[in-house]
This record gives sequence, structure tokens and C-alpha cells, in this order.
Amino acid sequence: MQTVDAIIHAGFIIPVQPLNHILTQHSLVIHQGNILDILPTQLCNSRYQSDNTQERLEHVIIPGLINAHTHSPMSLFRGLADDLALDDWLNHYIWPAEKKWSTPEFIAAGTELAIAEMLRSGTTCFNEHYPFAKIIAKITDKLGMRACIGGFFIDFPTNDAQNSETYFNKAGQLIQQYQSHPLITMAIAPHAPYSVSDNHFKRCLQLAETYQLPIHIHMHETKFEVTNSLKEYNARPLERLNQLGLINQRFISVHSVWLDDSDIQLLGTHNAHVVHCPKSNLKLASGFAPIQQLIDDGVNVALGTDGAASNNSLDLFSEMQTAALLAKAVSQSPTALPAAQALKMATLNGAKALGIDHITGSLETNKAADLAIIHLNNIESLPLYDPISQLVYATNKSQVTDTWVAGQQLLNNKKLTLINEQQLCNTIKVWQDKISKDL
Amino acid sequence: MQTVDAIIHAGFIIPVQPLNHILTQHSLVIHQGNILDILPTQLCNSRYQSDNTQERLEHVIIPGLINAHTHSPMSLFRGLADDLALDDWLNHYIWPAEKKWSTPEFIAAGTELAIAEMLRSGTTCFNEHYPFAKIIAKITDKLGMRACIGGFFIDFPTNDAQNSETYFNKAGQLIQQYQSHPLITMAIAPHAPYSVSDNHFKRCLQLAETYQLPIHIHMHETKFEVTNSLKEYNARPLERLNQLGLINQRFISVHSVWLDDSDIQLLGTHNAHVVHCPKSNLKLASGFAPIQQLIDDGVNVALGTDGAASNNSLDLFSEMQTAALLAKAVSQSPTALPAAQALKMATLNGAKALGIDHITGSLETNKAADLAIIHLNNIESLPLYDPISQLVYATNKSQVTDTWVAGQQLLNNKKLTLINEQQLCNTIKVWQDKISKDL
Repeated sequence: MQTVDAIIHAGFIIPVQPLNHILTQHSLVIHQGNILDILPTQLCNSRYQSDNTQERLEHVIIPGLINAHTHSPMSLFRGLADDLALDDWLNHYIWPAEKKWSTPEFIAAGTELAIAEMLRSGTTCFNEHYPFAKIIAKITDKLGMRACIGGFFIDFPTNDAQNSETYFNKAGQLIQQYQSHPLITMAIAPHAPYSVSDNHFKRCLQLAETYQLPIHIHMHETKFEVTNSLKEYNARPLERLNQLGLINQRFISVHSVWLDDSDIQLLGTHNAHVVHCPKSNLKLASGFAPIQQLIDDGVNVALGTDGAASNNSLDLFSEMQTAALLAKAVSQSPTALPAAQALKMATLNGAKALGIDHITGSLETNKAADLAIIHLNNIESLPLYDPISQLVYATNKSQVTDTWVAGQQLLNNKKLTLINEQQLCNTIKVWQDKISKDL
Repeated sequence: MQTVDAIIHAGFIIPVQPLNHILTQHSLVIHQGNILDILPTQLCNSRYQSDNTQERLEHVIIPGLINAHTHSPMSLFRGLADDLALDDWLNHYIWPAEKKWSTPEFIAAGTELAIAEMLRSGTTCFNEHYPFAKIIAKITDKLGMRACIGGFFIDFPTNDAQNSETYFNKAGQLIQQYQSHPLITMAIAPHAPYSVSDNHFKRCLQLAETYQLPIHIHMHETKFEVTNSLKEYNARPLERLNQLGLINQRFISVHSVWLDDSDIQLLGTHNAHVVHCPKSNLKLASGFAPIQQLIDDGVNVALGTDGAASNNSLDLFSEMQTAALLAKAVSQSPTALPAAQALKMATLNGAKALGIDHITGSLETNKAADLAIIHLNNIESLPLYDPISQLVYATNKSQVTDTWVAGQQLLNNKKLTLINEQQLCNTIKVWQDKISKDL
């Protein structure tokens, strides 16, 4: 008998790799942060023992979900301004609120709120895109969460940096700081093609090449962005960035709504990644991303929630469901984006996009023990013919009972282990009261 | 001091009528099944007393949600077959399963499962469209739920009736039986234009006119249906039914995806109702209904989940959110279908469609005490700038704590009061095991 850190006996385990595979009455063995074994429970009982053995017999274990695009601190703006035209929303609500409120304390509180929400809904890793990356990384580290933190860049001043030198310096320092962190990796996060000049893109590229980091950027979100780029640069945004040398297997193209065949081909031939944010794209009326076409052309498509100011939640279950449903209507085929594919988008494809699929994204021996556990024995999940279908089409984030990151249980039977929920709610209400006074 | 049946002190009350109205720290007074008063809590304490006084201070009270189109017993087919082309799904899964399994016992179990799920997610009334209406009505009555039960008709035999005479006889008898029922009203429910002949539509109309009942029917769900009708009848389905005299203020046109301007005008000028089922329309790749255009043209639009075999849940919170998000992208405007309008679709507009808006659909004195209560003091609902936005864009059915129908509390602090959840789950698993054997 081998003594291990933890054992979870589960009703079902869905490893995601291979696709569409469902193990019943299996156990997952965790040791030193990693998955040591996945085997039938009966066999497990004769091979392993642990002081921390948990029974989740009415549950399914899946790889922890990966939110491949978000702006964590914006959780403090959840529901601040909805149902508005994009420029009204930005000019009269979001940008003034950011200008007024985004201080280090605001960023810290918003990040903790976002991480709490993500952990409670089975997300174990997020891809962050926001100023004040240093504070976001610090909170992420403190709370034991996995993340890819973007070194933010935009041609305009924010409360975090007044000029491009400061942005690049801050990004460079953060990259150094987290170079050997066990859970936090870095990306370069230029804002968007319309807000970053060619010269600054070249510096982003240089930084990305030096450290072999992903470039994480909003691309082709609105039709306007594409037509404007054609006017200004005589090139579509992806074409322009390709000319600058940015499009490669570490390029993460977020949104990617307004793509023509040449864009899709460009992404495909360069093995670039797309992050689909269906709920944000609907809410801001950005449009319908051609997801099934991207998949058919071999592009790796991951899923993101975007920020809570334009969603208004960081719930990848809802995002998976919306993605799977929407793809069918958009491609006029009910066989488009089947459940297993949607689950892969929210897990392994996210890990691939972030360049960490050797570490996480599927339940395989020697990968990190990044897990979400979901209760399936309730009125809304019955009858249970196919757990994968149930996860995508009938599961609600409130059914998540446990979340583990690198072998550490951050949600235990619905309770956050490192975050004091009541204290966090109180902190958020103080911010709510302050910010409300302006409304 | 007046003694009343029940008093609920609430953080917020959203009456829906008038639109966009939010009352804070108010109380709702229930007596003899109806709303006796809605007033500031302080005032309430000096005017009313009750042995049943409940504090829901971190909560919002809204009118009970109205599911304006569903097939309750199909809950037993939840997740039976997904990601399939429509004809494959119907011919190889749903129809054979219905033929094999739909017995009175199946209908009773499926209906109880559906009602349990609806009550747990704040739904207090549903508009039913399925064979075996008599059994569905009986279970509905037993469980204290409000419903409009359709007297089902189709030109083909089902396990419920072998020929048209039997269908019409059964509908006629049921109408008589429920004529003075306090919670159950009836409708005539012909299946669809492609499955009912002109002569049979005339008999449906006759029955509807005699008893002044709504006609509840699937319309313009697929493009194919419209082109086929043009070939066969030289008229679009709505046009054909209008020629037969069916389109009036009691006509409930479900789905209504493929509408042209003439269809929309027809619905508008006859004060007919549309039931939008966005998630079903996406999942079956039916298409995108022109909801904002219908609203702009004055058509009353309600919300439905469709059956759990094509959704796969009976969750109007998810449906409201999907409707509000989708309408923005479809109409290319982020100001389309704002939150308050989506909430009205799921409440008062449903009541209007069913012809019971004098009884339910909004929180007003003398209307029935049909309520849903939602907890808003949790990580996912904070910060709370606007409770209506939060309900539509950031609320999850699991936040529903209480559901009242006609002054009877059917969900009390997340516990069903008339349904034994464990027993129901066990019953459903017996069905699951039987049906699984065929898969």
C-alpha cells in the first residue's frame, strides 16, 4: 500500500483526453500536487491509502476549467451599466469608473472577488488581461490559483502607467519575478490593434520572443475595428499583425468575431489560438464568431468569460452551454460543437492556448491535480443518460462542490478554503457603496 | 392591527408593473391566496400581523416566472439524445422513445419532475403542450402548481389517442372538468401547421371559440416548415391559419423564428402572442427569432423553455438571460431587450399570453400571491448596483429560495413543501435505468 496525499472516489471521471471518455466508479489519486493515478475504485483501495480520502460518489470529476480571457478586477463593475451602446458604455461608465476607482486596493479586492467566483464555479486557471498586473499576480499567488498574467500594454495612460516606457518596464519586471513560479505564467497583453501602434507591437513581440511568452490580445471584436484597420493600415487587423510578425503558435486572438476566410486561414496556418467569449459577444452586440468553421479549419479554440462588466459573470458552465448552443444556430447545424467538444474548449484547449497543456487541461497521470467536482444527483441533473451532455446542457455552476489547484483543495464541499467569504462580501459592499454614490 | 395569512419582509420587491420599478425594504402581505398589500416594512409592522412572517432581507421578491411553452413529461428524456440533426433526433430517438415509454405512469413521473424543477427555479405557472393532458393536469392539481393545460391535437395517433375523435373528445372532457378550477386553465393545443389538416384546425377553432380558450401551437419553427407550407398550401403557415380564422388575441404562436414582415404585421394587428424559446431554437439550430422587431411592432412576447429534451432544463433564469443577450446580437444593438423587458417577458407577458394577466404576472394588490424569491447576497451577485440587471445577467436558478403559488409556499428556503425530493429522485432513477437499457 502506497501512502498518498489525497484520494477522491468518484461516481464518474471525465479526463477530456481522450475525447468523449467516461470512467465510472474510478478514483483519482493525488500526490505532491500531481495526479499520481486514475484507476477503478476497487483497485485503488488495494493500492493506495491516504489520510485525506474523499467520497464524491454522486459526482463527476473533470479537469479544472480554464477561463482563457478575463479582466478580473472588473468584477467590481458587475452590473454597473448594462443595455447600453458600446461607446456610451465605455465613455460614460466604464472608462470614467476605471479612471476614478482603479487603485491598488480596488484591483486587489476585484481580483479576490473574481477568483472566489471562479473557484466556486470550477475554474482553476485564468488568463488575465488588465493593468495593475503586479497586484493581480500577487493576489493570485496568495490565493493559490493558477493563472497566466498578461503584462498589459496600451498606447494610452491608465492609472497603472502614464507612458509606454512604464508599461514595458512593469511588464519586464513582472516577467522576471514570475519566471520560475509554480502556478503563475506570464503573457504579453497588448490591448488591441486599434489601441497599439506598430512600433509598440514590435516591442511587445521582442519581449514575447525573448521569453517565449504568449501574446494575448483582443482581435476582430467589432466590424468597425476591421473596416477602420483597412482604412488606416490598408490591412485587416490580423493581416497587419502578421506583417509585423506577431502571429504564431503563441498568439492568442480573443473574440475573433469578424473573420473572413483569409483570417481563418491565417490563424490556422500559424497554429494560433482563438478565445471565444460568446456571452460578451452577444451582450455587446459584437456579433457571432464562426466557431465551427474555425474548428473545422484546425484552429485551437478556447473559452473565456471576458470581464464581469460585460457578461456579467465569470461562469464557464454558462459559457460552455452558450457556446455549444450558439454554434449550432450560427452554423445551421444541430450537430455543431457537440458537448464533449465544448468541454474540451473550456479545459484542454485553454491550456493549449496558454502553452501549459503539458501541465494541466486534462486528467492524466503526472499532470497537475487541477480539478473541478460537480454533483449530479439532483432534480435538475436527472435522469442521467450521459454525464458529458449533462455537464454542458443541464449543469449549473452551483453544482460545483470542489475545486483543486495543483493538489490544493481551494473549494471543499462548496466552502472556499483560503478565502473568507463573509469578509470578502463585506469588502465588496464597501466598494459598492462608494461606487454607487456616483450613479 | 389586521391579522393576515403571511407577511414577507424583503430587501427588494420588483413588481414588474410598472416596468423598471424597484421597492427597497418593503413587505408583501398575503391573505386568502392573494396579495393584500405591498408597503414599506416599517409601515407593515404597524398595520399587519401574522403567525407566518418571513424575513428575506437579503432577497428580492419578483412575480413567479411563467414558462409559456413546455412539454413537462419530456423531462424524463433530458439528455437522452443531443447534438443530432432534427430528423435523426426525432426519428431515431424521441419518437421511438415516446412510442415505447409514454404510459400514464411515465407521464405522471415526468410531470412531477418538471414541476419540481420549475418550482426550484422560481416558476409558478406553465403552459403545457403534450398528449396525456388529463394526467398532467391531475399531477399539476395535486402539487398546487398553476398551469394552462393544452388539449392536445395532432393528425397522427399517439399512445394517448388513436384518432382525431378521441383527441377532441378528451380535450372536450378536460375543458369541462377544469372549467372552474382555481389554478388550472385550458387551451387548445394543435401540434403544428404541418401536422394538422385544415378541417381539424376548424374543429380546434370551434372548441376554442366555444370556451374562449387560447390556441397554443408551434409556428414557423424551421425554415423548412415555411417553404413546405408555401408549396402545399400556397400560403405561409401564419397566413394559412389566418385564412382559417385562428389568428386573434388568444392565439399563442410558439417559436416564431422564421417570420417575414407580413407575418409580424399579421401577429401585431391581431394582437396575437409569441412565445420565444431561445435555447431550444439555438440547440435545434432552428434559427434566430426577430424578437426586438416583434416587440417594436407591439407583439406581446413571452418566454418558454420548450421541453427538457431540447434545452435541457426548465430554467427561466437561463432563458431570460439568453433572450436578453441574443436579442442584442441579432438586432446588432446592445440596447435591445434590456433587463427589465426580459423580466417582463418571463412574467407579465406570459400571463397575458395565457389570458390570466388579471390574476398573475405582476405583484399588485388583489392579484394572486404567485412569487419567486431570490437571494442576492452572495459572491456572484455582488456588487449589487441594480437588482433587475443582476436578476437577468448574473442570477442563477440556484439562488431561488422560495416559490409561492396562490398564497401557498411550495418552496420554502430551498425545500419543496409538497414534493418529496428524495423519493422523486429515486422514481426518476428507476425510469432512467429502464430507458437506458435501450441506448
